[in-house]
Amino acid sequence: MLQIEEAVHCLQQQVQPIRKTQSLPLLSATGRILAQEGRAMMDQPPFPRSPLDGYAVRGQDTAKAKKEAPVCLQVVGKVCAGEVFPGQVKAGEAVRIMTGAPIPQGADTVIRQEDSDSGQEQVMIYKSSKPYENYCYQGEDYKKGTLLLPKGTRLRGNEIALAASLGLDPVMVYQKPQIAVVSTGDELTMPGEDLKPGKIYDSNRYWLSARLSELGIPAVYSGHCNDEPEEMAECIRKRSQQADVIITTGGVSVGEKDIMHEVIQILSARQLFWRVDVKPGAPVLAAVFGGTLLICLSGNPFAAAANFELFVRPVIGCLSRDESWIPKKKQARLENDYRKPAGARRFLRGYTEDEKVWVAAGNHGSGSLSAMLVCNCLIEIPPHQAGAVKGDMVWTYLL
Amino acid sequence: MLQIEEAVHCLQQQVQPIRKTQSLPLLSATGRILAQEGRAMMDQPPFPRSPLDGYAVRGQDTAKAKKEAPVCLQVVGKVCAGEVFPGQVKAGEAVRIMTGAPIPQGADTVIRQEDSDSGQEQVMIYKSSKPYENYCYQGEDYKKGTLLLPKGTRLRGNEIALAASLGLDPVMVYQKPQIAVVSTGDELTMPGEDLKPGKIYDSNRYWLSARLSELGIPAVYSGHCNDEPEEMAECIRKRSQQADVIITTGGVSVGEKDIMHEVIQILSARQLFWRVDVKPGAPVLAAVFGGTLLICLSGNPFAAAANFELFVRPVIGCLSRDESWIPKKKQARLENDYRKPAGARRFLRGYTEDEKVWVAAGNHGSGSLSAMLVCNCLIEIPPHQAGAVKGDMVWTYLL
Repeated sequence: MLQIEEAVHCLQQQVQPIRKTQSLPLLSATGRILAQEGRAMMDQPPFPRSPLDGYAVRGQDTAKAKKEAPVCLQVVGKVCAGEVFPGQVKAGEAVRIMTGAPIPQGADTVIRQEDSDSGQEQVMIYKSSKPYENYCYQGEDYKKGTLLLPKGTRLRGNEIALAASLGLDPVMVYQKPQIAVVSTGDELTMPGEDLKPGKIYDSNRYWLSARLSELGIPAVYSGHCNDEPEEMAECIRKRSQQADVIITTGGVSVGEKDIMHEVIQILSARQLFWRVDVKPGAPVLAAVFGGTLLICLSGNPFAAAANFELFVRPVIGCLSRDESWIPKKKQARLENDYRKPAGARRFLRGYTEDEKVWVAAGNHGSGSLSAMLVCNCLIEIPPHQAGAVKGDMVWTYLL
Repeated sequence: MLQIEEAVHCLQQQVQPIRKTQSLPLLSATGRILAQEGRAMMDQPPFPRSPLDGYAVRGQDTAKAKKEAPVCLQVVGKVCAGEVFPGQVKAGEAVRIMTGAPIPQGADTVIRQEDSDSGQEQVMIYKSSKPYENYCYQGEDYKKGTLLLPKGTRLRGNEIALAASLGLDPVMVYQKPQIAVVSTGDELTMPGEDLKPGKIYDSNRYWLSARLSELGIPAVYSGHCNDEPEEMAECIRKRSQQADVIITTGGVSVGEKDIMHEVIQILSARQLFWRVDVKPGAPVLAAVFGGTLLICLSGNPFAAAANFELFVRPVIGCLSRDESWIPKKKQARLENDYRKPAGARRFLRGYTEDEKVWVAAGNHGSGSLSAMLVCNCLIEIPPHQAGAVKGDMVWTYLL
């Protein structure tokens, strides 16, 4: 049967990284992917800068300064942050200077205010300072021309601040991929409505939509469709006008109500695969309709969730140019036993911390939602083993 | 001098966890804090449920079924997900059943379709099934009355899905705290504008605003003020009408342009503290004006960033009722040397992975933004030591 990695590769082959860009105010660009280069147009700082409040002087003038034998310098001016001192500091002179101000020409160090008598016209210096002590060099953060933010950078707080320091506002970013979510199933009732006998509330659509929001790309559409192939085909036709990816849940197995096979036929969509060597969620189905990728997940809540992590996230990572979408894989030591054999690669709900991992307690049925609450990873149990026991090293996929 | 923990405690004492609530559609509530209980109004599943497509039967009827010697049962009806079979399954009978459908009364197991001849009126069963095999018990996920989502729960994907399964939509959540950000400094130019001599671009306001967005509570106001005490006091007066917390940068040291001391006086605000035993950012200042908390950070970019993590995040965690705002502290083994003594507790930019931590390369000046790009933690170096060396266990604060 198709392996997970083959299925992911196949899906990734179908998508092109987003090319459309948009201009955004820098303050609205958090979490977005940069579509231009962020290159330094000047040194940072753009001038030698004072790191503190005090007096800009020539270090050699203070060489002999001591508390008991202060050196007296002539204060020839003052410079605050944002100003430029027009003259030059000569031998025996000092300029009163504030944090962040450009160090005047001629001066090569700054005496801390606390190491002086804070004099206005003349100042007594109580402590010597060597040249280039208390001195921020021009360009010490970065030099003019440096490529600081390459195209494709994810803009978090640090990158936004750096872009600001470059003067970059507004900023060109890639558009977000358009993702639609559709749940299927005649048994599904919408939360907030009355529950009739035989029905349950729809949770898959909510899980998928909330998870997309949580990861930074809210769904552009989130809806439900009954088990009517024509109705579902029409829904996909409509959503495919806008969506790069449509994620559906339910209807992918072998029963009479497993409508997705018929939907693919009605649409004449190109099927990529059906069934992958994974438990839960083996009957995952993928197809292409027009330019839109359809990823049809099992209707079992944990199967849908696990398969979203395994199959959908890497594809959105590719499409959005954002590697943080690809779940991190990490080895960890199993801290409790899970003794249940399986023919397929099996994924369990887990909790991991410090290279240790616990199989989450509670019901492991793929219909169970409550067991997911404490999860922060999936645990992979290799096939054809009688489960796994405490001490085994296992692969975890971080959620 | 005041210790970091004392300062944080003092700030947290000043704020009350948000009490105002709002009703939101469940699909818009991702990342929010639940202000009501999410209690199960019914068992989940609400009825014994079929986990697969096949035939609902009495297990004892299939006890002798084998491929070579199939058992023949009378098919008395069909039940799909969302329907209820009105009758009862008697000895020698079977009901065609689809995944998710309620198991009819009388039946105690489901035969997989693949283990039958898929008969319509009569069905040949090729494999036996014990009672309650292939059977999802009513309430196996959770029982009626169970408190699944206590008040104060953070709603991520899993919690949203669980709330959906409870039928909860719309949902009551706490309002987000209102946070304002104001940078000060005559030297600051807004990104996108021309840079004049002696000036630099404002980055602190961008860092703080982007970081607040990243963590889920975007600033309600983000602005700049010149080094004019009256102007800044007026800005705080205005913003305090709305904001629970105002974060400012710059003007907290001892220089002439360190206007925040005068601003506190003009406002007759109640000062909580000034100066904390921390490097960078020692001159952090805190005050209360009306019901608004003012946290005034140093204007040095790394100092502002580190102090936001150390002082502001725990306060917003308290205010927003969201513990994920409190930075996680973790011990890690230092992988490179940092030989620079300091009198105060010093925080460095670091990168941590698998209980190891590296001091980020590059310029460690508190003005440097570029060194922050690779950071995912702060490293704490205890005071009165000649730095730290490879192999030392140090505390890290995860960003």
